[in-house]
Amino acid sequence: MSTYFPNISKIAYEGAKSKNPFAFKHYNPGEVVEGKTMKDHLRFSVVYWHTMCGQGADMFGGPTAIRPWEAGKSGLELAKARVPVFFEFAEKLGAPYYAFHDRDVAPHAVTLKESNQWFDAIVALLKEQQQRTGIKLLWGTSQLFAHARYAQGAATSPNAEAFAFAAAQVKKALEVTKELGGEGYTFWGGREGYSTLWNTNMKRELDHLAKFLHMAVDYAKQIGFKGQFYIEPKPKEPTKHQYDADAAACLNFLREYDLLPHLKLNLETNHATLAGHSMQHEMEVAGASGALGSIDANTGDLLLGWDTDQFPTDVYLTTQCMLGILKYGGFTTGGVNFDAKVRRESIDPEDLFHAHIGGMDAFARGLKIAAAIRADGRLDQFVKDRYASWDNGLGASIEAGKESFASLEKFALEKGEAGGAASGRQEFLENLINEFI
Amino acid sequence: MSTYFPNISKIAYEGAKSKNPFAFKHYNPGEVVEGKTMKDHLRFSVVYWHTMCGQGADMFGGPTAIRPWEAGKSGLELAKARVPVFFEFAEKLGAPYYAFHDRDVAPHAVTLKESNQWFDAIVALLKEQQQRTGIKLLWGTSQLFAHARYAQGAATSPNAEAFAFAAAQVKKALEVTKELGGEGYTFWGGREGYSTLWNTNMKRELDHLAKFLHMAVDYAKQIGFKGQFYIEPKPKEPTKHQYDADAAACLNFLREYDLLPHLKLNLETNHATLAGHSMQHEMEVAGASGALGSIDANTGDLLLGWDTDQFPTDVYLTTQCMLGILKYGGFTTGGVNFDAKVRRESIDPEDLFHAHIGGMDAFARGLKIAAAIRADGRLDQFVKDRYASWDNGLGASIEAGKESFASLEKFALEKGEAGGAASGRQEFLENLINEFI
Amino acid sequence: MSTYFPNISKIAYEGAKSKNPFAFKHYNPGEVVEGKTMKDHLRFSVVYWHTMCGQGADMFGGPTAIRPWEAGKSGLELAKARVPVFFEFAEKLGAPYYAFHDRDVAPHAVTLKESNQWFDAIVALLKEQQQRTGIKLLWGTSQLFAHARYAQGAATSPNAEAFAFAAAQVKKALEVTKELGGEGYTFWGGREGYSTLWNTNMKRELDHLAKFLHMAVDYAKQIGFKGQFYIEPKPKEPTKHQYDADAAACLNFLREYDLLPHLKLNLETNHATLAGHSMQHEMEVAGASGALGSIDANTGDLLLGWDTDQFPTDVYLTTQCMLGILKYGGFTTGGVNFDAKVRRESIDPEDLFHAHIGGMDAFARGLKIAAAIRADGRLDQFVKDRYASWDNGLGASIEAGKESFASLEKFALEKGEAGGAASGRQEFLENLINEFI
Amino acid sequence: MSTYFPNISKIAYEGAKSKNPFAFKHYNPGEVVEGKTMKDHLRFSVVYWHTMCGQGADMFGGPTAIRPWEAGKSGLELAKARVPVFFEFAEKLGAPYYAFHDRDVAPHAVTLKESNQWFDAIVALLKEQQQRTGIKLLWGTSQLFAHARYAQGAATSPNAEAFAFAAAQVKKALEVTKELGGEGYTFWGGREGYSTLWNTNMKRELDHLAKFLHMAVDYAKQIGFKGQFYIEPKPKEPTKHQYDADAAACLNFLREYDLLPHLKLNLETNHATLAGHSMQHEMEVAGASGALGSIDANTGDLLLGWDTDQFPTDVYLTTQCMLGILKYGGFTTGGVNFDAKVRRESIDPEDLFHAHIGGMDAFARGLKIAAAIRADGRLDQFVKDRYASWDNGLGASIEAGKESFASLEKFALEKGEAGGAASGRQEFLENLINEFI
Ligand SMILES: [Co+2]
Ligand SMILES: [Co+2]
Ligand SMILES: [Co+2]
Ligand SMILES: [Co+2]
Ligand SMILES: [Co+2]
Ligand SMILES: [Co+2]
Ligand SMILES: [Co+2]
Ligand SMILES: [Co+2]
Repeated sequence: MSTYFPNISKIAYEGAKSKNPFAFKHYNPGEVVEGKTMKDHLRFSVVYWHTMCGQGADMFGGPTAIRPWEAGKSGLELAKARVPVFFEFAEKLGAPYYAFHDRDVAPHAVTLKESNQWFDAIVALLKEQQQRTGIKLLWGTSQLFAHARYAQGAATSPNAEAFAFAAAQVKKALEVTKELGGEGYTFWGGREGYSTLWNTNMKRELDHLAKFLHMAVDYAKQIGFKGQFYIEPKPKEPTKHQYDADAAACLNFLREYDLLPHLKLNLETNHATLAGHSMQHEMEVAGASGALGSIDANTGDLLLGWDTDQFPTDVYLTTQCMLGILKYGGFTTGGVNFDAKVRRESIDPEDLFHAHIGGMDAFARGLKIAAAIRADGRLDQFVKDRYASWDNGLGASIEAGKESFASLEKFALEKGEAGGAASGRQEFLENLINEFI
Repeated sequence: MSTYFPNISKIAYEGAKSKNPFAFKHYNPGEVVEGKTMKDHLRFSVVYWHTMCGQGADMFGGPTAIRPWEAGKSGLELAKARVPVFFEFAEKLGAPYYAFHDRDVAPHAVTLKESNQWFDAIVALLKEQQQRTGIKLLWGTSQLFAHARYAQGAATSPNAEAFAFAAAQVKKALEVTKELGGEGYTFWGGREGYSTLWNTNMKRELDHLAKFLHMAVDYAKQIGFKGQFYIEPKPKEPTKHQYDADAAACLNFLREYDLLPHLKLNLETNHATLAGHSMQHEMEVAGASGALGSIDANTGDLLLGWDTDQFPTDVYLTTQCMLGILKYGGFTTGGVNFDAKVRRESIDPEDLFHAHIGGMDAFARGLKIAAAIRADGRLDQFVKDRYASWDNGLGASIEAGKESFASLEKFALEKGEAGGAASGRQEFLENLINEFI
Repeated sequence: MSTYFPNISKIAYEGAKSKNPFAFKHYNPGEVVEGKTMKDHLRFSVVYWHTMCGQGADMFGGPTAIRPWEAGKSGLELAKARVPVFFEFAEKLGAPYYAFHDRDVAPHAVTLKESNQWFDAIVALLKEQQQRTGIKLLWGTSQLFAHARYAQGAATSPNAEAFAFAAAQVKKALEVTKELGGEGYTFWGGREGYSTLWNTNMKRELDHLAKFLHMAVDYAKQIGFKGQFYIEPKPKEPTKHQYDADAAACLNFLREYDLLPHLKLNLETNHATLAGHSMQHEMEVAGASGALGSIDANTGDLLLGWDTDQFPTDVYLTTQCMLGILKYGGFTTGGVNFDAKVRRESIDPEDLFHAHIGGMDAFARGLKIAAAIRADGRLDQFVKDRYASWDNGLGASIEAGKESFASLEKFALEKGEAGGAASGRQEFLENLINEFI
Repeated sequence: MSTYFPNISKIAYEGAKSKNPFAFKHYNPGEVVEGKTMKDHLRFSVVYWHTMCGQGADMFGGPTAIRPWEAGKSGLELAKARVPVFFEFAEKLGAPYYAFHDRDVAPHAVTLKESNQWFDAIVALLKEQQQRTGIKLLWGTSQLFAHARYAQGAATSPNAEAFAFAAAQVKKALEVTKELGGEGYTFWGGREGYSTLWNTNMKRELDHLAKFLHMAVDYAKQIGFKGQFYIEPKPKEPTKHQYDADAAACLNFLREYDLLPHLKLNLETNHATLAGHSMQHEMEVAGASGALGSIDANTGDLLLGWDTDQFPTDVYLTTQCMLGILKYGGFTTGGVNFDAKVRRESIDPEDLFHAHIGGMDAFARGLKIAAAIRADGRLDQFVKDRYASWDNGLGASIEAGKESFASLEKFALEKGEAGGAASGRQEFLENLINEFI
């Protein structure tokens, strides 16, 4: 059966001492951590766009990746050729999920009608492969940013016709996602933002975006699609400033337009850092509002100012991610989705394996470390103790709503100066984390 | 009367051709622009903290500024000595407003009681000077970040006693602001954030912050303080990450905790850019939610990563600010507040004049240019025309809520491809702005 | 004759009051400033790559620009079709110079031999157009970054064959540049850097780069090419870190490898700011070493972390550029080269005119303002006076090499404390500049 | 003897399983790695300024740290009181080295003469403690940035008298460093840069700086000080732009002024990242020029734009540092100097221990991991193989200087297209590193 990666077998767990680059050293799917298998904790997902469609082109140069299965093909024929390769790849990797954009699995045709037909042709193949392999769709999404018609926005375009085409595209993508048993649907507004405020009516554009999302919610209800909707924050690129800039901006928008009950966040590390936040921060912001849905697992280069979408290998990062996920109850509909691409110089198909194996192992380590930190208990206890003054006495009274400026002034005047200062112990805590890394 | 700046007279408007550095070249207080005097449009405000308390110290060195009136004084005596100097300065400058922190006008004493007494002593002097000069208080605020008791937060401290002292301090500051006829009250949460997430319960801290602000709103009502409350976004510094990071984060917080009816935003350029946004962006975000209250007029250095609080002299920036202010109806309670400091090397009292004169002239130019752009009408018309497809036909129908994914798909399938693409014309618009600069 | 821009005539100077978007408001080619015409001061140059080859594609989407002359063409045919369009454009604009990459005017063919033939075919057309229009070649360059063979470097490739092909390409480009009377030749090392240090031998790569440049110098001598060589600093993008990161890194490299006599710098604003420097800084660094050769006139967006190559319209920036150029004696071989591209949403051919007209006008204003500041003399005098202590007495003695630590200690011990502190007057100076803007 | 840290004994190595926060888990001084003890590899150094003088003040607030030994003391008395505390701390920690600034161990007095006397008084105490404990001076330095006289520069001041005082101060500091057996002397030019280019003559300032350093070199020779001189790069803060911005800028300056034989670089991680480089990059740049002298071990927060000087706990970072050090032959005169400070909230003396223990353990892990990677050999072999085309044939011929553009063109024309492309394997290499972390 193995025609596309002939020299690579199904990736097996061989343990931390293995020096086999095509083996997992940490990801052991059936191993139980905190009462659940690693597979069920991590719900790894492979993305179609980077893995199958990425060819190494960047703003300064063309494709570099050597893909034997693409030779001489283009358009729909190429799209068809990629389907079995993708599933062979995901299967050998042991990824239980995948994610796609409509226009990545099948290209834009000249008319919408034909685009839909092409899409349908591919969807049939995807379905077949899903059935064959048992691999499931984590979420679907619509590519509303590559086509020239969306150059100035899709739902936020100044051109109402672009909005209509975007609506038609999402409608179709929702139907397909339902058809394929997708557990979610993600909005990433690649062109929903602006290049310059000089030509932009921000308020009107945001009103349109909200209307668009409400239509999606309505349509999902209408067709019985029960998957979770996500919105994916990113601050900039390709636009100068995107509306869904970070978790707080998304939540603010969702609250303003009564959309918070319907959408959760799909957080991406590289987008977090481009916005000036750590991934840990974004997870807390989302989690505190009950909106932590799923994560796009990758990493950026903090010394670079664009979305490098690198594979995550830093165990500190994956530990933080998994501590956050466990803290907020684990994934329900979401998962660890590798929205990441191999470097332009990593030109061989085998590099796709190196990349994903490294990412999966890094997350597996993160999961085990996070669980160990939680089992150890010192970190949680430290944080709990730090707020002890709020658990009874004055603090509890404030939390219970029994105090006012007047009563607190009385307290403070009598006391003269606040007591109770304790060290924040950041260095101790960083050392504590290092005990587990 | 002039004892502190003996060589500087009241700054007069001399027109654009003047080469007198101690004259306004553009700010002509009584000149009418769009039906209102420049003075009433701009509502310039001088800040007590930088202007009187700034001495040029930074993280790597001590004071440099030579202030004859400070020689040999310290503590409350120094605080008293500064009051008449400040008002002579503001009066010569012709600034109609000022702003202060409680602990900048009067220092922290050993006990809260004594601190309040010292504060009262200074407030009496401020009141006297306000009456003598007619200068008014734009807003008051409480310094909840310099004292060691607030090192880990004031309203968001893990220590409930710090919360109580902060409450007592704001209570007093609200009373004083009312007493002095202050038109607003600002919260800037200098320590409301975290140094490390490892020791932080973000959700609990935010709950406390909301409770604190509700107490402030309640107390204002109780004492009949009618001024506008503001919250001032800043993403970082002194903390690693502040909760009031940017306009969107503030609005999200205010919405979540039902505080949006009670607080508007006080936006600062340097804080906007530290958060990765232009001031123009932050003004739109605030304005679109009806929350554009006041501005802290300064500028950062975009190549530096900390709050340099420089005086604003870039006419592009001031034009953008004033276009935003005029678009959203002009200031009501707010104003152009110079939260800016002279450089550490600008050691002479006369540098305070150069700095403020330059900032006032830059804003006066910004106002006149903004008004000219509005009178010309081409910019507004361009933006209006860009969204013409939404004013009738399909777009109007979408805005009216008459369309759905189904009806839009029908439209798109029939149309085949979206029409109506028009150039965004960014370069043309930038040239257009340059016609007025 | 006008077949490509039928509705646009030669751009004329109409003065500052003109509201005609297709007229210069400030650039008056024959107007004399500091004894030289604006045309000779500014030596404007249009770039072939962005202007003719840019189609609006970015990392997230395909071409958007509507170019009637490209319809249905590709490869060499398209390359030929662009030549007369480019010269009609430059001629109507009144740009006396242009610049190109070998592979932008003619595409890569399958073999080097064929690539050279295609290049020759285009060069014949370029020469014809140069003769027809009088437009001259500011500098030529070789595109050593787009082809997959250069993915890991050209002169710094780990593959010696890539080095050889780069050498062959530059050899040919030097011959062509000579043939077309080019006044310079620029090296921009788009792939000369690294993606990860884990796989990189930096020292060996730099040795190769130096060898490459020495070969270029030798070959230029051999064929009698007298043009100026330039190296263009850029810190990152496309690579994670480029070797020619900024002016100082380039100078360090040139000094280490004895290349400083042979190359000057071609500075670009957007590259300066990506490296964390102002353009003004980079010009000083280059100028102080006698290495300020030419400038790529554009601007970045300081809130974005990639090379946006926007057209420069900020008059503060152009004033700084022209003050720098005038200070160091004006351009000899270099010029103001618009390495800038219209935004992806600026889809019409006329946007190319808006963009260049705006940039030329901005630089013309910068030139006039710079000349006015120099004529006024207050700025120069201030700086001169600031260092007065070095013009005689102790300072002059130090500069003359007559002092030592011992003699200076003696002075200091006798003096007790240093005198002579004077304000840096930054705010005053910023106001002074604003008098001229 | 233990009077200052009564509850803390000498920190012992207890191995990786220890949960004792006051024990080393990885740093085992006598353990031999690559034929040398960990102690001799790492040459840990504690800094006087942060450890003894840091009190937690920042730009927005005063001291927070509770230091029992400081209570009620100030000036010279406080300075004297700190000496035994510092040595007790370093001794308990087992740090073999320390570093200081003149004005940190003893404060500025009113006159230079008195400052020298105070300094001498402290130096006597330091010498006594060095003899008692065996702790040695890694390097001395002069604080030329905190005093107001240096506000506009020391060696680069526009005021020649400031230069003279800086010279006198460095003269004295060199004498003291020699007296105390210091193995090096470091220049960090905290004010050697500019706040604005509008008032700056960069070339003249750099000439002065070079003259200053030559005087230092001459004086060292005169008094027989054989220690290594270092220059420490930092791009900004406190100035807007410092002259010693990064490794390349320093090397360029040293080459230009014939100082390269006399100074090496002291690299700091936080300064590297503020300049937009990784520490790994800066080490390569310095190492490739034989100028890698010593390192200031700390880390910045890449999401913040100022020098946070945090303790290094990231094992990826310490691994990179130690790989670089081992690659370039290990430290000779330099060491791992903790130029790092506890957070403002870490208010207890014990936090100083947590911080240093964590940093030392992280570097010990880095050393062991680096040695393991080197022993494994796969990484080095990969890099070596990647450049194999340069080891013989065409590449070797180019390196040997036997090729020219003409010969290479001949090769390329015959070949038609370059062969030999191989994957850069970044993901594989990152996984390989993770095997050892
Ligand atoms: Co993503
Ligand atoms: Co991304
Ligand atoms: Co402010
Ligand atoms: Co600020
Ligand atoms: Co360029
Ligand atoms: Co560029
Ligand atoms: Co340091
Ligand atoms: Co530092």
